[in-house]
This record gives sequence, structure tokens and C-alpha cells, in this order.
Amino acid sequence: MRTGLSVAEALAVVLDAAGRLAPETAPAADALGRVLAEPVASDRALPPADNSAMDGYAVRARDCAGARSGSPVSLALAFEVAAGGSAERALAAGEAARIFTGAPIPPGADAVVRQEDTDRDGDAVRVNVTPGEGEHIRRRGEDVDEGETVLVPGTCLGPAHLGMLASLGRTGVSVVQRPRVAILSGGDELVEPDADVAGGRIVASNSYSLAAQCREVGAEPTYLGIARDTPADIEARFRAGLAADVLVSSAGVSVGDRDHVRGVLAKLGAGMVFWGVQMKPGYPLVFARFDPGPLVFGLPGNPVSAMVTFEQFVRPVLLKLAGRTRLFRPRVRARLATPLRKQPGRLHFVRVVLERGDAGLVARETGNQSSGVLRSMCEAQGLLIFPAEASELPAGSEAEVQVLDESILREEASGLEA
Amino acid sequence: MRTGLSVAEALAVVLDAAGRLAPETAPAADALGRVLAEPVASDRALPPADNSAMDGYAVRARDCAGARSGSPVSLALAFEVAAGGSAERALAAGEAARIFTGAPIPPGADAVVRQEDTDRDGDAVRVNVTPGEGEHIRRRGEDVDEGETVLVPGTCLGPAHLGMLASLGRTGVSVVQRPRVAILSGGDELVEPDADVAGGRIVASNSYSLAAQCREVGAEPTYLGIARDTPADIEARFRAGLAADVLVSSAGVSVGDRDHVRGVLAKLGAGMVFWGVQMKPGYPLVFARFDPGPLVFGLPGNPVSAMVTFEQFVRPVLLKLAGRTRLFRPRVRARLATPLRKQPGRLHFVRVVLERGDAGLVARETGNQSSGVLRSMCEAQGLLIFPAEASELPAGSEAEVQVLDESILREEASGLEA
Repeated sequence: MRTGLSVAEALAVVLDAAGRLAPETAPAADALGRVLAEPVASDRALPPADNSAMDGYAVRARDCAGARSGSPVSLALAFEVAAGGSAERALAAGEAARIFTGAPIPPGADAVVRQEDTDRDGDAVRVNVTPGEGEHIRRRGEDVDEGETVLVPGTCLGPAHLGMLASLGRTGVSVVQRPRVAILSGGDELVEPDADVAGGRIVASNSYSLAAQCREVGAEPTYLGIARDTPADIEARFRAGLAADVLVSSAGVSVGDRDHVRGVLAKLGAGMVFWGVQMKPGYPLVFARFDPGPLVFGLPGNPVSAMVTFEQFVRPVLLKLAGRTRLFRPRVRARLATPLRKQPGRLHFVRVVLERGDAGLVARETGNQSSGVLRSMCEAQGLLIFPAEASELPAGSEAEVQVLDESILREEASGLEA
Repeated sequence: MRTGLSVAEALAVVLDAAGRLAPETAPAADALGRVLAEPVASDRALPPADNSAMDGYAVRARDCAGARSGSPVSLALAFEVAAGGSAERALAAGEAARIFTGAPIPPGADAVVRQEDTDRDGDAVRVNVTPGEGEHIRRRGEDVDEGETVLVPGTCLGPAHLGMLASLGRTGVSVVQRPRVAILSGGDELVEPDADVAGGRIVASNSYSLAAQCREVGAEPTYLGIARDTPADIEARFRAGLAADVLVSSAGVSVGDRDHVRGVLAKLGAGMVFWGVQMKPGYPLVFARFDPGPLVFGLPGNPVSAMVTFEQFVRPVLLKLAGRTRLFRPRVRARLATPLRKQPGRLHFVRVVLERGDAGLVARETGNQSSGVLRSMCEAQGLLIFPAEASELPAGSEAEVQVLDESILREEASGLEA
């Protein structure tokens, strides 16, 4: 088992262990955010026939040659075509057909004149413009040809794709499975949120923050509860999670006598891959894998350490399992409001708030950076990367920041005033 | 009723009509993405007692003065304190207590020495470093003081906030209601996705793309089905949507004889606010309101027009109703790959893909920009703003782009190599 990996090494190892999950059929209407696992070809042309792009009149363009305001051409109103209807007959010379948006162009007609470019006079229509041939006509197959491949595997399905699937008559679609994540906490001091905390007990809050981190990326968390500090209880709960794609435990992985997680993993047949990553918070991270079976992340117990190690390693793994190709948070460069110092050796993820200054973004520490202080993660808009070998980042210097709160990338304006 | 508004005017009008919805109590574990509607104060101190940040030994710092590797201080191992446990007695001079991460500091002790800085020899512990007073001790209330307000109303709840709520023992929380959106399509030519499309019928795909656009921002869509082109059917379906916060119809709002939506809205008592916005796609947009009752958006029927008008007007309204303060998409500036031309007068939203070039982002049209071509929205990563009064944007010039696919803001790297 490797130990003391750099963050980049550890990330490469966990991503290498994660492959795309198998496909399953999902209702198309519920497939928002899922990754397509099949090519989608069209069984139809869209639109299905030449049709009108406007409400107005279908005409023969050559009948209207030279028409203009003040010198209109008068045509005989022959019939009407509604959307969803069809023409009763072909249009003859000198005739116009009332037509509505989406309605099929009658045989014989080759242009549509907009209603606002006409005047109606009983059974006659005066046309005040000279239409070009094909004007305001949407051609059959303009959007999609019959048999054409419209969506390719790997597409992350957004609203337009779901609209397209509906257009093609698809009610089900093959998508990559959502990663199932089994989550447990471990420790005799832990209780559920509704329990009495007298005597120094604390709530197993990691399970709640980690489950929400799973949901943020579309994974399905299940909760295995709180394991007491006995090998038997830890083993029973891990066994309950073996059907998941990823097993995430928090606490129980440091050097103390009472840390039974590694022993239980070995007993259950997991291969230990690494222990310990050169980062702060979060050094005592365990990564193991069952084969076949879930990938296992033993996260540190401190609330901040658990969330930060999830961010760095579990999140990109879940996105990769789900078939996504973009695995990482947006990053920005920001200037430090105050200097930072540390010992060289471990990469620090510094919780920061980001403010927009005259010379770009400014990053400011969220106060107490203790890994026990969950408040720092509540306030953090980003994780500033203080590189492993660096010992000082002066005030005003630039650093990379992983953006946790993507809304800070939005300015408080629509852009429409531009 | 106003008509022919600019996009910025129309946006101001719809946002002015939208207020934050009322609060409701939600299970805290399910409140991801919801907006907090109450101040959350703590009924406890976190951590609840001075406790150890490490696995190691609780000591009296003055007992270890001068200790270093090669010249250790030897202390008598007195007792053990586990996390979730408590000290059996106070620590006396010359004694050390075995202690685990999270366990309460025994009375008398004032520092923790890490396990790796000690050697164990039977009932004696050799300490190889000189601890500072308070070292490796997390103080009671370091994260949260009893009675302190930890989260303020208006906070959009993320994973850390849900972890914090759990830490405070909260199982329920007051949050702003999710906007309920009733969606209908209108037109005799429309069918559901599983129906036969012989004879030129087309699927009411807008309802599917619009419902997904609602879900993207956490709103709850309900589907009112397809209204036929009769006042009676349109009225019945609108009535079914009057309990929603927002009513969205697509099609049925242009100038044609068969467009009954405006008449039905008037009959039902809605106040018409505006018709027609100087934009393309999307001119024939209707905005009306019931008071009391829902805001009503009558969107154009073309698939692209419906999605683009939803993006510009309905999406920010839903975010505002949900209590969010950041209402708009991220924007980027990009250079045009090819020139764009149009008549002055209407603002064009040009569907573009974005590529990262040497000199920043490059925007390229997604091909056919017809408002009937849903394919252009499937491929679009952004909507380029071609200002109303402009008639030409040369190749290489810069324009604002509203980012639809936020993953393009991510580079394909973690930032950890920095």
C-alpha cells in the first residue's frame, strides 16, 4: 500500500480506478442531467412537411411580382389551412390560402406573406409586398432528417435534449446509471441529529454534508448509520454497503488504537490502495477497492477534512462513474487579501471568500481554518490552493481557487444592458 | 397594455412583479439548494467541551518542559479517555492520559502530545517534544457558541449548511417555498410523444424542455396537457393552473385568428401587462398577472423561441420567487468566429458554441438559427447578445455571451498541478 501521496498522485489513482457505470433505461422526461448511453437517431423528419413560419397567406410568388404598399396585388381567398390540418386542394393561379403558423403549405403555393403585409377585403386579399420564392416556409427536415443521428452517446442531457427526445417520440432513453453511494459515520461519541447530546456527544453531521455533496452531482446516497467503535459493528455496516458503487466512511482512519476500519476492510477482502495524502485538511485519507465491488473512501472525521477530501477525490470519481467528461470545479485566479504561511510539504486548501475588486477577484480567509470548524466551510466560496512546496504567499500575490459557489461567477446583471 | 418593449424593459417589468414566496418547513436533510427563511441560532456549543484534536496523550505542559527527541520526559500513564467518554478523574502532576481525537480533555491537563511524538514503555509514556500550553486542544465553542446565530435568512443551503444544521440537532428548517409552475401547450397539431404523428402532427415538445428548465432551477413543474384551439379548452386548462405560482403556456399568442389565449386570460380576470418584446427569437411574448394568482407567461410556440424567452424572463423570475439573489447566468466575453448581420431594432440571441482559443473564448454560430430548429439549442453552449441597435458584428469583434452550459467554464484539469 502506498502512503503519503501528493494530491495530484492520489487524484490520478482514484480516477484511474473509476470507470463509467453500465447503462439503464430511464423515462426521457426524468433524464435531466443524465449522460446518454446510446446514439439517438430520428424515425421522422422534423418538421414533417413544408410548413408556414408565420400567420398569413400562402401564395404563388410569381402572382405577386411587383406588389408593394400603395400598389398591391389582389388575390382570391381560396381556402384556409390550420396547423394540424391539411389543404383541401392545390392552390391555383391568382389564389391565396389563409394559413397559420405550423400549417402545411398547400400544393402549388411557394411562399407565405405575413398577415401584417396584407389587407383583407371580403373574399379578396391585397398583398402589399413582393414575396421571395420560399419565403416564410420551413422546409421538411430542416431541423432533423429521417434516419439522422441527432444525439450522440456521452451527451449530458439538458432541457433542449429532452425537448428533442420528445419531438422524436421517445419516452424512454438509455443513460448511464447514477452512482449509488453508501455513507456511514463511525465513532462512539456520535449520535443522530434528534438525539440528546448531554455528556459531550456530537451529531454525526458528516453523513448529512456528504449525502448533500453526492446529491449535488446527481449521485444517490444511502445512509448506513453510525458504526460503533467495534470491529463487528463496522464490519456489519460495511457489508450493508457492498452493493453500492462507492462506499464512503468518515472517521476511523487515523493512527489511534480504536481505528478498526482498515482491519475490517482487509478482512472483507478489499485491496488497500493508499493511506495518507500530503494535504491539509485531510491527510489521513484511505482509498481501497473491492474487485468486484465498491470503491472505498475512508475520509477523516473532522467535518472540514471530510468535505474537502470528498471535494478533491470522491466528487470527480462520481462524475466519472456517471459518464461525465468534465470532472472538476471551475477555477479562478484571485489575489490574496492577507499573507499566508505554512510549513512546506503538504498542499493546503484554504477556505476563502471571494470579492470582486478593481483588479479582479480578491480571496480572503474565512477565519478559523481549524478542520473542526464547519463554519469555515459554510462561509467558503472557494478553496484556495496553497501549493505543497510553498511556505509563503504574500498579500497581493495570485493563487488558484477552486470555486465552490459557482454563483460568484455571475455578475448581478443580465448582460442585456450591453 | 404595453407592447414592443426592449428586452431590458421587459425583464425589469417581470422581475418587479415577482416577490419571494412564503416560507414552509422542510426536512433539513432534503433542503439542498433551498433558501433559508429563518435565522438559525445554536442551542449548544460546538465542540461541546475542550477536546483533543489528535490521537495521543493529554499532559500538563509544564511537566514536559525541555523534552525533546533524545532527551524525553517520562510520565506515568494514568488512564484513558475515548471520544464519547469522559475522564475518570483529574490528571495529577507527572501523569499522562491516553486520549483519542474528539475526546474531552481531562481536568488538570492543558496540552495534547501527538502519539507520533511519544514512545510507550509499559505504564510509562516518553514525551519527545515540548508541548505549548493549549496545543492540539480544540476549545469548547470554537466553531459555534451557545446562542450564537449561525445561519442568516437568505442563505442558499449547500452541503456545509446541511452539515451545520445536523450538528445543531435541527431536523426541520424554514425555507422559501419552491415555485410551482403549471405548463401547457396549445395547438390542434400537437400530440404527446407516444402518439402517432401521421398526417403532419408534431409532438408538444415544449412542455418537456420547459419542465426541464424549471427543474434546473429547483422549481416544481406540473403539466396541464395540450389545449386544443378552442376558447373552452384553453380556459379549462388555464383554470387548472390557477393555483400555481407561475403559469407558462407555449403557442397561441401570435396575431392569428385562432389565437385565443389573450381572450381567455381577459375573461379569467388576468391583467395584461405587455405583449411583444424587441427580440429574436421570441417577439410574441405575453406577460399577464392574476392578483391574487399566478404570473402568466404566454411563450411563442417555436421550440427555440419558447426556450429562449423562458431563459430570459421565466428563469430569473423563478429564482427570485425562490428567494435567490443571484438571478442570472454567468456571462463571458467571446470573439466572433464569423461576422453577424441583422436589421437594427430587435436584440438577437444567437445560439453559439464556445471554443477556447489563444486569445480567449471564440463564439461560433450553431448553424441554422431558425426558431424552429431545436437542434441549435441542443448544441448551444451560450446565447450571444447581438444588441438591438447594432446591424453588424465583424468577425473577431467581442460580444457578451450568456453561458448555458456552465461546464465550459471548467478547464479539464483539477488545478492541483499548479
